[in-house]
Formats: sequence, C-alpha cells, structure tokens
Amino acid sequence: MSSQASSSATGEGKKKHILINAFDMSTIGHLSPGQWKQPGDQSTTKRRLDYWINLAKLLEKGDINALFLADTYGGYDTYENSLDNCIRRAAQWPMTDPTIPISAMAAVTKNLAFGITASTSFEPPFLLAKRFSSLDHFTQGRIGWNIVTSWKKSAFKAIGIETPIEHDERYLQADEYMQVLYKLWEGSWSDDAVVADATKDEYFDPDRIRTIKHHGKYYDLESRHIVDPSPQRTPFLFQAGTSEAGSTFGGKHAEAVFVSSHSPSVLRPKVDSIRRQAAAHGRDPRSIKFFGTFTPILARTDEEAQAKYQDLRKSASTVGGLVLFSGWTGIDISKLPLDQEITAADSKEAHKVTSIMSAFTTTSAEMTRWTPRTVAEKASIGGLGPVGIGSPATVADEMERWIKEADLDGFNIAYVTTPGTFEDVIELLIPELRRRGLYPEKLEEGLTAREKVYGKGQSKLRDDHFGSSFKYDVYREEAAHSEKSGDELGNREEIAKAPEACVIAGAAQIRYSGSDAAVLDKEPSVGSQLREALPRHLFKQWPRP
Amino acid sequence: MSSQASSSATGEGKKKHILINAFDMSTIGHLSPGQWKQPGDQSTTKRRLDYWINLAKLLEKGDINALFLADTYGGYDTYENSLDNCIRRAAQWPMTDPTIPISAMAAVTKNLAFGITASTSFEPPFLLAKRFSSLDHFTQGRIGWNIVTSWKKSAFKAIGIETPIEHDERYLQADEYMQVLYKLWEGSWSDDAVVADATKDEYFDPDRIRTIKHHGKYYDLESRHIVDPSPQRTPFLFQAGTSEAGSTFGGKHAEAVFVSSHSPSVLRPKVDSIRRQAAAHGRDPRSIKFFGTFTPILARTDEEAQAKYQDLRKSASTVGGLVLFSGWTGIDISKLPLDQEITAADSKEAHKVTSIMSAFTTTSAEMTRWTPRTVAEKASIGGLGPVGIGSPATVADEMERWIKEADLDGFNIAYVTTPGTFEDVIELLIPELRRRGLYPEKLEEGLTAREKVYGKGQSKLRDDHFGSSFKYDVYREEAAHSEKSGDELGNREEIAKAPEACVIAGAAQIRYSGSDAAVLDKEPSVGSQLREALPRHLFKQWPRP
Repeated sequence: MSSQASSSATGEGKKKHILINAFDMSTIGHLSPGQWKQPGDQSTTKRRLDYWINLAKLLEKGDINALFLADTYGGYDTYENSLDNCIRRAAQWPMTDPTIPISAMAAVTKNLAFGITASTSFEPPFLLAKRFSSLDHFTQGRIGWNIVTSWKKSAFKAIGIETPIEHDERYLQADEYMQVLYKLWEGSWSDDAVVADATKDEYFDPDRIRTIKHHGKYYDLESRHIVDPSPQRTPFLFQAGTSEAGSTFGGKHAEAVFVSSHSPSVLRPKVDSIRRQAAAHGRDPRSIKFFGTFTPILARTDEEAQAKYQDLRKSASTVGGLVLFSGWTGIDISKLPLDQEITAADSKEAHKVTSIMSAFTTTSAEMTRWTPRTVAEKASIGGLGPVGIGSPATVADEMERWIKEADLDGFNIAYVTTPGTFEDVIELLIPELRRRGLYPEKLEEGLTAREKVYGKGQSKLRDDHFGSSFKYDVYREEAAHSEKSGDELGNREEIAKAPEACVIAGAAQIRYSGSDAAVLDKEPSVGSQLREALPRHLFKQWPRP
Repeated sequence: MSSQASSSATGEGKKKHILINAFDMSTIGHLSPGQWKQPGDQSTTKRRLDYWINLAKLLEKGDINALFLADTYGGYDTYENSLDNCIRRAAQWPMTDPTIPISAMAAVTKNLAFGITASTSFEPPFLLAKRFSSLDHFTQGRIGWNIVTSWKKSAFKAIGIETPIEHDERYLQADEYMQVLYKLWEGSWSDDAVVADATKDEYFDPDRIRTIKHHGKYYDLESRHIVDPSPQRTPFLFQAGTSEAGSTFGGKHAEAVFVSSHSPSVLRPKVDSIRRQAAAHGRDPRSIKFFGTFTPILARTDEEAQAKYQDLRKSASTVGGLVLFSGWTGIDISKLPLDQEITAADSKEAHKVTSIMSAFTTTSAEMTRWTPRTVAEKASIGGLGPVGIGSPATVADEMERWIKEADLDGFNIAYVTTPGTFEDVIELLIPELRRRGLYPEKLEEGLTAREKVYGKGQSKLRDDHFGSSFKYDVYREEAAHSEKSGDELGNREEIAKAPEACVIAGAAQIRYSGSDAAVLDKEPSVGSQLREALPRHLFKQWPRP
C-alpha cells in the first residue's frame, strides 16, 4: 500500500507526460465479464448511440487522449470446446462494428482521438483504405488504426476460410497490405491536386493524382486512391503484438504498440527489442509509443477501493473468466474441477495452468495455490492484465512503476464497469498524475491523432517512418517497393535465426489484452508465452533455441 | 406549361401517398457536374461532418422519407479511355465511404431513414452482415441497403480483380450472398435469446442462437451471427436494376426498386414485369415500391424556374456531362467533334449517340438534332434522368404523370445544387404535393425504415418475402436453402428463354441513375438499353428474340 507521501510529484516538469486511452469494445463485458449486473454499469446499452456519445463527451471533458476500440469476428470457443459459455456469460460476444458510432462521437468532440481495430486478413486493401480515409476526413484527422491480422479459428470460419492463414505468413501478407495502403494514402495524391478553378471548369488536376500499380505476391491492383487526402493521410498506426513476426512488423510499421503483460520486467526486453528494430529501420526508437493495458479500481482511499473491489468480485462471472482464460491460453480449463486445487502432476492441462499462473505470483505473495475458481477470479476482472486497486496515489505509484520499469509511454485503461471506471480515472487518477507532473495540465486543442502524440505540425507520417518512402514527392513507381515484400520484412528463416528474434520469442507473454482484435499475433491454439512458461517437449512446433 | 389551376388537388385523400427520398453521393457533382461553381452550392464541403449533419436536419424537418446514398469503388473512364476528365470535372470522383457519416446524422434525427449502397461483389457476406446490423442498431432501425453487384472495370481493378465477374454470374452470386445474409440476420438469433438473469450469471441463451451452416456454390461458412438482432434484422432492401437478371433478382429480394428512365411509358412495362415476378414468388406485387430518379428545378413561377435553369446551365460542366454519358452508355463520345452535328451516318459512335438521344425527343419537340455539346447539356443537369423545371404546380404535374404512367411509388430526388435543390423541394414542392393529397400532412414519428414504407408494426420482413423463410422459427437447417442457389433464381438458359424476360430485356433503358453503385445491373461496356435502341447486328451478344 502506498500513501500520498510516497509519491514523488515535485512539479519539476522533468517527467515525461504519459498518454491515457480509454479501452472499450462494442460488447458486454470486454475484460471484466459479469459486471453488467452492477448497478450503474452501462455495458448492456452499447447498441444505442447515446452510450457512445456520452462516453465520448466524458473522455473529451476528462482530457483523455483517445478511445481505443477492440474488435473481432469470432468468439472464444476453447472452453468446453464450445462458444456456448462465451455467449451465456457475454464474454466479448456479440459485437457490433466499431467504425459505425465514430462519426456520432466525432460530432460532439474536438480533441478526442479514436483508435479502431481492423484486420488485414479479411478484406481487400482498397476497401480498408477508402474507409479509413473517410474516417480520417470526418474526424478531422483524429483516427488511429489498430492493425491486427486476426487469429481466431471461429472468425476465419465465419468469413469463410476453413483454416486460418499460418501466423508468420499472415505477417508477410500484412506487410504487403501496408505497402498497398501507403501507396494509396501517401503516394497517389499530390498535396496540390485540388485546383478548384471555375474558369477552367477544373476541380482536380488528374496529372497530380498518380495511378498506383501494385503487383505483389498477395495483392494485385491498379488504381488511383478514390479519396482525396485526409488530414493525416495514413491514420495513426497502432499495432498489438510482440511475437517475433509481430515485433518485426511493429518495428517497421507501428507508431504505437499496444502491449500487455503481468510484469513490467517481463515486458521491458520486448519494448527494448521493438525499439531496437525500429532503429534498425532508421527510425528514432523513441518515436514508437508503448501503451500497456491497465485496469484501475479507484476510490478516495485504499480501504474504499478494496471494498469496491470486493463488491465487484460478487458480480464477476467465474465461467466468463474461464472462457477468456481458455481462449487466450488455448487450454480448456473446463477439464479441471472448479474448486479442486490444481497440481502440476494431475494432468497436462493442470501442469499448463500452474505454469502460467505461477508467473503471476512470483512478484507477490498473493496466492501460490490455484483452483480454476481462483484462476477465474483473476481473469474475470481486468483479464489477466495488471489491476491497480487503491487510492489515486496507490494506483499512480503502480502506473509509475510500469512506466519506469517497462519503459511505457502510456496506458490503455480497461474498465471494470463502464462508464464508472472511466469516470474514476478522470475524477481521481488524472488529477493525481497531474500533481506528479505526469499528465499535461491542459491538452492542446484541435490536434490530429498523430499530433497528439508527436506534437503540433506532425499530422503526417514522420520522415523516418517506412511509409514516408511512399509519399507523393518521394515515391517512384519504378522503385517498385512491392517487389520487396517478404524480403523487406525479413524472410521467416532469418527471423527464426536472428538472436534478437529469439530474445523476443523467449520473452514470456500471454496475449490477454482483451480480444483477438486487440491482439495481432495470437496463435490459433497456444501463444508463445506458453512456450516460454512450459516445458518445450510439449510443443512440437517450438522454434529452435 | 402548367398552372396552379391545372392541378387536380382536391384533398379527397383518395390518392396514394408518395415517398420522397433525397439522393446524394459522397462526391462533388453526382448527377449535375460543374455546379460546385454555383454560389451556395455545398458539394465541395462533403468531407466535413457538418455537411451531412445539416443535410440530415433539413431532410428531417422537411418530412423527407430517406436519404439515399450512392457509392462506387471506381470512376468513369470511357470518355477518352481515361479517368482524367472524370477527375478534372469532379464527375462522381473522388468518393468517401457513405456508411461513415450515418451515425452523426442518426444522432440529430429521429425519423429520417438512410439508404446506403453496398456491393455484393467485394467482401465476404459476414463483414457486410455485421456492418449493416450495427447500422440498424445505431439508427434504431432506420437503415436501408441498396444492393448492387458493381460493374465498373475500374472498381474491379482497384479491388484487385482483373476481369469483372460476368453480369448474370454476378446475380447468381448475389442471390446466394442474400441467402447467407438472411440466415445470419433472420435465422441465427431467436427473439428471446436475451435472458439477462443475474442470478444465473446468464445474459444470452446460447441454445436460442443457431449456428448457421452455409455450404453453397460461392460461399462456405459456419457461424452464429455476431450481432444480436437489430430492430429490423434485415435492413430495408433497395435494389437498382431492371435488366433480365436484375429484375428476377428484384422480384425475389427487393422491397423497393430504384428505377430510371427518360419516359414513363418505357418504364411501365419494366415495373409491371417486376411486380409480376414478385407475384410469381408469392409476394404481394404492390409490396415492391418503385422509386424513380427525378431532378426538379423549382421556383415560385415557371418563369423564375426557367431563369434559374438558364443560370445553372452556365455552371454545368460540358465535359463532365460527356464523361457521365460515355460512362453510362459505353460510347466514347470524345471521338466526335464537340460542336459538329452528329449524324447517324458519320460513324458507329455517331449512330449510337443519335439512336440514344432520339429516345429523348420522341415525346417533346425540344431538339431533334444533336451535337456532343447538346448531349452534354442534357447529361450535365440531372444526368439523363427526367428534369422537371417550373413552379411547384408544373413540377408536381410532371411527377403525377410519372406516378400514374409508370406506376411509381415515389422518387429519389437528385439535386442540381446541394442543399439548394432539397430546400426547394421542402419549401415549394412538398406543400404542393400535400395540397394535392399526394403527401402525408405529418409523418408518423419514430418508425423504422420498413415501417415508413409498410406501416407501423412492420419492422421485420413481410411474411410473403423470400427472406422470411429464413426466420428463426421457420428456418430449418435441413431444408438447406443454400443447395438451391442458382436454381431458385432460375438458371440462365431459362431466363433467356422466358418470354417475360425478353420483355424486360427488350425495354429500352439507360442506367443513368447516377453511379454504378446506384445501378446494379450495368454491363461493363454497353447497357441493354443500347441493345434496344440500336440495330441488333451491332451486338454479338444480343439475346435471342
């Protein structure tokens, strides 16, 4: 337990300001299934525009950087090998399209940015390019895109693909997808293509709008971009994935990476590694911003916050938590009796569970013995991500620890109840962060999503970003970037061999960040954290050491 | 010229009420290229939400039924075999995604419906199903879908398909696409799947949410629908196409058909035919509503309206008109000198143009000799659709004539300047229609898009609609509708042989309704109107008589 006195806020202004996003999903539950039962929770009203409009107004008023929206095309069906309990407990299913309420929220705000999850695996790049250009226009440049490649088998089956594309292949495809998008967003239109000369009956100058000719391994198209340049052209690029291929992708394309871990010390080498990869791409490694998941349970005092937590526990869905746990880890925990202590010797599943959960207890004395029910208690509030319970000072201490130890730039704040958690953050936490000099006193007004991160004037991709090589005045069709796809990302053998890549692959991780859609690089069955956490002989596909 | 006296308004209330939609597209120009030069025209501000919000408020206040939005993924490149002049004159290019501003408009209205164009050719049905379910939720049931299959070569190239799918094949594919959608929208969720029982920790009952298993010729998927039922489930179904395959499709699926013709007498047999096809599907033939394009130029008096028209002509883009004409007809009119009279003997192109344009002059004494410039004058104001110029009485007379002669149920009103044309309609025309008993005095409030057409209580598909056979309580997976795809639509040989189909194919038509997206059945090069208008030996693919 921390106290106000322990906070190191001195108002020197030497600390870096952090960025705070609200993390939501167009579904009941998200990272805390069962809380729809709490009085005041509004998650069952997400089908009405009012929910989103009120949330946007709240976040804008509270100087929150962005609303970050996860998305998916499938549910979690590992638990009992069925979607039934995912449905019954409303554990991230069903789900509406996150793009639809954006313009209603944009209309009532001027500063709030929006991060929207969309997959590179399910639609032609031209469709996504048109949609995000439209979003960027209508929000006046306040759009970010959380790039995911998708992994859920259920999603692929819904789309009509029986077998999900293999993980690394998805990234090679995503890399080429990005090149097509940069060509359309950055390379097709000159900034001065709008002429609007009535005497000449000329509105646009076609000579300043290039036809993109892309003939790559995965995509073939020829077209000018059908949307005139939006304020940012390329939306601000989020990515969520720290697997080897995911990190390589992120080091090249991401301007912000969404990460999740149970421990800052486990996270740190991954953050360092992605920054190094960015540097290898000629980028300022500090220009990639890292956002960690974080679920706060706040009250005026630690005691009140603990009481609140105990109350929230009563609403938590035990089975909902297990559905999420099973979905994220690939382990069907339903095979273990709910209240029986799990001992590693019992079964393969039991062994896996204890290995994973032990990772959560090494830095605290909380629990050392697990039953599926206690696993569920952890998983059903804040997913498996960090949960900060306490007074503003206590929670701010914990956040500061994450910032320092993991080298984070900000947080995606997950809610337990909505909008309750966000109200608490704005009312209690942000004032405390301000007292510590960690949060700006006032956000500059009217900035684009990218300017909010990089400063006024930087609405377009930074010059050191890979996508800038496709900018209209720089890009030459002859240079044929598209030919290099795959090679540029590094071929798979090389990824597997690279010592750095092994560091990344070796870092323990569970992608419990909330949804497949907020998790770019989750494998269909078992994530690479499991590979780290568990004996290697269990995994035939273990990458060479 | 008509006068107030000639109007037959008697207030008997025996006339059927008509439906009026505003017709727009997220682009400068739409059906009247060049009018961005007019003072007061706001078409160049369509990238700002304000344009759409203000338009929605205006239409709502004016008791307009719906805002109908065209869309496309490509531009018109027949003229000079290039997209350059389409771009230069801003003739329906560039273009944002019409779904994006919807929620902002929905937030400021309660009654206005929205018709959004989307194609069955470019994305998996599950994506479209999720998006439209989301739209229907967030508008509280005010969504219509204008089903198109797309035809522009430029659009297919942008998507990455070198050769557009052949016309009739596109319809067979679209028919199966619809079956997948009905299964998801109608057949997956029971109405009582929401349980919300806190004591049981149960929000949804998975036993009342069916997994759709579709294994057809074009689509294979297995999934529950990822969105809980929206107010209408299936959005109100618009369709625009009167080719043989289009009419067969419309008779089966459409609840409203968007038609366009230069003459009501040419249109009538097509309307009759689709109603007959609906009857053959066991539907009430009157339940399909027909909306004709119509561009009014209104003022208090005929003289003022004519003066207004003369002023608008000055802003019209001659080349823009030719770009549209060439795009719609497949004739590159740039090959003919701009001010030289076109005589049929001159060239193949000249012959085609005179044939088409003569169709426009048979019922009036306007012009009998054409130059490309005079063709452009016609095409650049209101496209090639009917333009009504005059006092409210004159224009209402013309509309009444269309209603009676073509058996229309309403109009998609195209603008010359926006929002000017819509303001005139609301201020001048609708009061006149009300005086004649053609327009309801007040719209009932809070209705869904379908209720606005079929009456309160009919938010879901009518029982006589094909899609109703997929409703949760009716549909049986064993019945395997998907197996019948193709056959149900009628195979192509049968379509070609059917006498009725020949009537449809024989009816002269140009798809000048505004965009490929508002035109479901346009062929890549030459439409079937041309086949009617021109000597048959010119067309190798002419269907047997």
